[in-house]
Amino acid sequence: MKKLQLGKVFTLLESGPAVFVTTNDGEKDNVMTISWTMVLDFAPLFAITTGPWNHSYAALRKTKECVISIPTVDLIDKIVGVGTCSGADTDKFEKFGLTPVKGKQVRAPLIRECLANIECRVVDIIRKHNIIVLEGVAAYVDDSRKEKRTLHAVGDGTFIVDGRKIDRRKMMRSKIPAGVWF
Amino acid sequence: MKKLQLGKVFTLLESGPAVFVTTNDGEKDNVMTISWTMVLDFAPLFAITTGPWNHSYAALRKTKECVISIPTVDLIDKIVGVGTCSGADTDKFEKFGLTPVKGKQVRAPLIRECLANIECRVVDIIRKHNIIVLEGVAAYVDDSRKEKRTLHAVGDGTFIVDGRKIDRRKMMRSKIPAGVWF
Repeated sequence: MKKLQLGKVFTLLESGPAVFVTTNDGEKDNVMTISWTMVLDFAPLFAITTGPWNHSYAALRKTKECVISIPTVDLIDKIVGVGTCSGADTDKFEKFGLTPVKGKQVRAPLIRECLANIECRVVDIIRKHNIIVLEGVAAYVDDSRKEKRTLHAVGDGTFIVDGRKIDRRKMMRSKIPAGVWF
Repeated sequence: MKKLQLGKVFTLLESGPAVFVTTNDGEKDNVMTISWTMVLDFAPLFAITTGPWNHSYAALRKTKECVISIPTVDLIDKIVGVGTCSGADTDKFEKFGLTPVKGKQVRAPLIRECLANIECRVVDIIRKHNIIVLEGVAAYVDDSRKEKRTLHAVGDGTFIVDGRKIDRRKMMRSKIPAGVWF
C-alpha cells in the first residue's frame, strides 16, 4: 500500500462510498459498515454518523481512534455481511476473511483487502446529533489493485457501482485545493 | 413531480450524489452545489458542510430553510457552473437555465430540472464544525424523467456517474427501516 498525501485524502470519501470503519478497543479488532459519512474539510476532516446502536461506538469513544477502509465492488458481500452482524458476538475479521494490518499512528487496523485506508483520530463527538468528527492522520492506497470501483449504498438494500468518470477539471480548477491535481 | 413518503427520503441522499441547495433570502433565490452531505437519521435528518465562504450561508442562517435538489448526469455543466460562481454577483437560476418552482413548506424554490427535491428546515447549526443539520419536511420525485443517474464528485474536478445497481435487499432486510421497500 502506497502512502497518499494528506491533502488528497478527502477525495477518497467525497464521492460517498460505503466504507468500513475499524476499531481496536485494547482487546480486539472490530469493523462496521458505514454509509453515512461526509467531508468537513480538506485537512482532511470527516464526519460520520454513529451512536450507541453500533458496537464499535464504545471503542471509538474510549480510544478516540479508528481506520476508514474503502472497499470496492468485489467486496460487496463482505460489506453487507459486516453491516448485518455485530462485533458483540462475532469476530468479523475472521468471519468475512478480512486481514487486519497494523497501522502507524493508531491501533485500529487497516484492512488489506481494501482499496484505501485512512488512519483517523476522533477530534469531537457531537452526541446530540450522533456525529463523530474525525481527522485523517495517514492514508494509503493499494495501487496494485485493478478493481477500483467503489459502491454507494442507496439505503434500500441496493448498491450503486461506480460508472464512468466525467472530467471537468479545467472548469473546476478555481475550487480544487492546491496539491489535489492527480 | 410526485410526492415521496418522508420515510424513503433518506435514500435520495445516502448514495452521496452532488446536489444543489437552494435558498431564498426574502428577496431573491440562490443555489449552490454541495457534495459534502450526510444522512443523520431516517426521519429524515441530514447534515451538510457549509459556512460563511458560501453566499447561501447567510440565507440559510436567516431563513432556516432550504431545498436540496438532486440533479442527474445530463445536468453536469449546470452542477459545475453553479459550483464555480457566486450568488453575490450572479442570478444563477437565470444564468444556468434552472427553473424555480414554488415549494409548499418553505420559501426556497424547488428546481424543475432536477430528479428530486427535498424541502428542508434548518434544525441546528454547529458553527464549530461548519455543519448544518436539516430536517426533510416534504420531498418530490420526477417519475417522468428517463435519466435517473446521479453524479458523485470526487473533489479533484472529476465526477463519477452512477453505474449498475446490485441488489442485496434480502441480505439487508434486517437493516432497512419499515416503509423503505421499493
